[in-house]
Amino acid sequence: MGSEIRSVFYVSDNTAVSVHNIGQSLLTQFQHIEFRQIFRPFTDSMEKTIALTEEIKSTVKKDGQRPIVFSSLVNREIREVIIRSSGLVFDIYDAFLKQIEGELSMKSVPTVGRSHRIVDADSYSTRMNAVNYTLAHDDGLTIKDYDHADVIITGLSRTGKTPTCVYLALQFGVYAANYPLTEDDFLSTNNNFSLLLSPYRKKLFGLSINPERLQRIRHERRPDSRYSSLKQCQMEVRMAEEFFTSENIPFINITTISVEEIAASIMHEKNLQRRLG
Amino acid sequence: MGSEIRSVFYVSDNTAVSVHNIGQSLLTQFQHIEFRQIFRPFTDSMEKTIALTEEIKSTVKKDGQRPIVFSSLVNREIREVIIRSSGLVFDIYDAFLKQIEGELSMKSVPTVGRSHRIVDADSYSTRMNAVNYTLAHDDGLTIKDYDHADVIITGLSRTGKTPTCVYLALQFGVYAANYPLTEDDFLSTNNNFSLLLSPYRKKLFGLSINPERLQRIRHERRPDSRYSSLKQCQMEVRMAEEFFTSENIPFINITTISVEEIAASIMHEKNLQRRLG
Repeated sequence: MGSEIRSVFYVSDNTAVSVHNIGQSLLTQFQHIEFRQIFRPFTDSMEKTIALTEEIKSTVKKDGQRPIVFSSLVNREIREVIIRSSGLVFDIYDAFLKQIEGELSMKSVPTVGRSHRIVDADSYSTRMNAVNYTLAHDDGLTIKDYDHADVIITGLSRTGKTPTCVYLALQFGVYAANYPLTEDDFLSTNNNFSLLLSPYRKKLFGLSINPERLQRIRHERRPDSRYSSLKQCQMEVRMAEEFFTSENIPFINITTISVEEIAASIMHEKNLQRRLG
Repeated sequence: MGSEIRSVFYVSDNTAVSVHNIGQSLLTQFQHIEFRQIFRPFTDSMEKTIALTEEIKSTVKKDGQRPIVFSSLVNREIREVIIRSSGLVFDIYDAFLKQIEGELSMKSVPTVGRSHRIVDADSYSTRMNAVNYTLAHDDGLTIKDYDHADVIITGLSRTGKTPTCVYLALQFGVYAANYPLTEDDFLSTNNNFSLLLSPYRKKLFGLSINPERLQRIRHERRPDSRYSSLKQCQMEVRMAEEFFTSENIPFINITTISVEEIAASIMHEKNLQRRLG
């Protein structure tokens, strides 16, 4: 039992990203089993569906047990073929749609893809503008547009500022700038930070990290440098956290959380409004 | 019935991003109803949970009908309080967990957050490196590192290359570079494109767009310019598509699809391997 490997299919007529997230959060509850993940996005024709049921059948034969299938299939015929396959199928539509129809006293009209509101021209522009804004303000290159920022992420080098900003822009359409903290910000009293950022104090949010993790990340970039020494990382992290505290900047330690979680925490803590969907 | 507005809660002990996507794809099947969306991520204490049930109760009173609640709650006590609230609750764990336990002959161990594998140091670095790679290669600024690209996205200005690359990096850990197409690439025979990109032909993927949409997007950036005239957009789009065809570069029209869908299509069409989770 200890080394059991179970095959898992993620099937969708669309990207399979959501069904992957949902399936993964469920399977995380079973830490002792190893899962072999197979992705089948864009399963949107009967031909692909039949091929997939064959693949599921041969997985049963190979593994000696049936795979788990998480699916999100709008088309009823396709959905039913997958449900009748030899896997253990959990389909989002199968599980919930009938009850929603009952509640709304209305039949659903099969519509693949996300809401049309999501892909309309305005959302498209909002998202592009937010991503472009973030990139233009990456690593504090330009501060003249901080006026337009919804939030300014600050932290040491390699604490995940850029991925966080980019995710905020893509997922929520939020204008996220970033400001990299350096030793200068801690050491001088008449420093960049006070001069440049004091008008934007309310927009600031800090990222911190465990020094051991920071050391490991920096080591990949510049092995055996002062920059990547544990001593330097410990010192910088301590000073950064003292700085956040003394400047009254809310911050989180990102060591054990994903970019999605960091971004959602920031939305929540700063009470930011999503500009998308 | 035509102008009915229904309240929808997205509740999670984590980010609520997945449960939002799932709920939204289900509700998209009911185009005639308008939904008022309320996000309650990080519902991770009994105190917050009780407050939320009160909020649901007052929504019933205000709307004159019960809200729909999509939830993803690992903790059984919290989950049961929400399920017993006055909303119509669809909880992912409630729907699927028991059956998975049966299939695996094993009790689940409540674990909030995504799999530990997702937030381990390696995934973290992979994702950061991919995002940094993408930003370093945004808009073809540096082509010397195209050797390391998993894919090179090409297309006209404002066709969504950057958001697509960034999404590929964040979601899949893929190294995505981009190369902006300009008139020079179509007009000259001894052009940049052939000189620079021919060694990387197999990595190329094109984005196209409807000229009317392109015109609208460009107009926001530079109103009433040649760049944003419909005639110019029509000409550029026609030439870009002819160019993709003659150079044998696969491409998609992104006018009606989301960044998530563009990225997943590219993963699928180019048979790219995800480097994450």
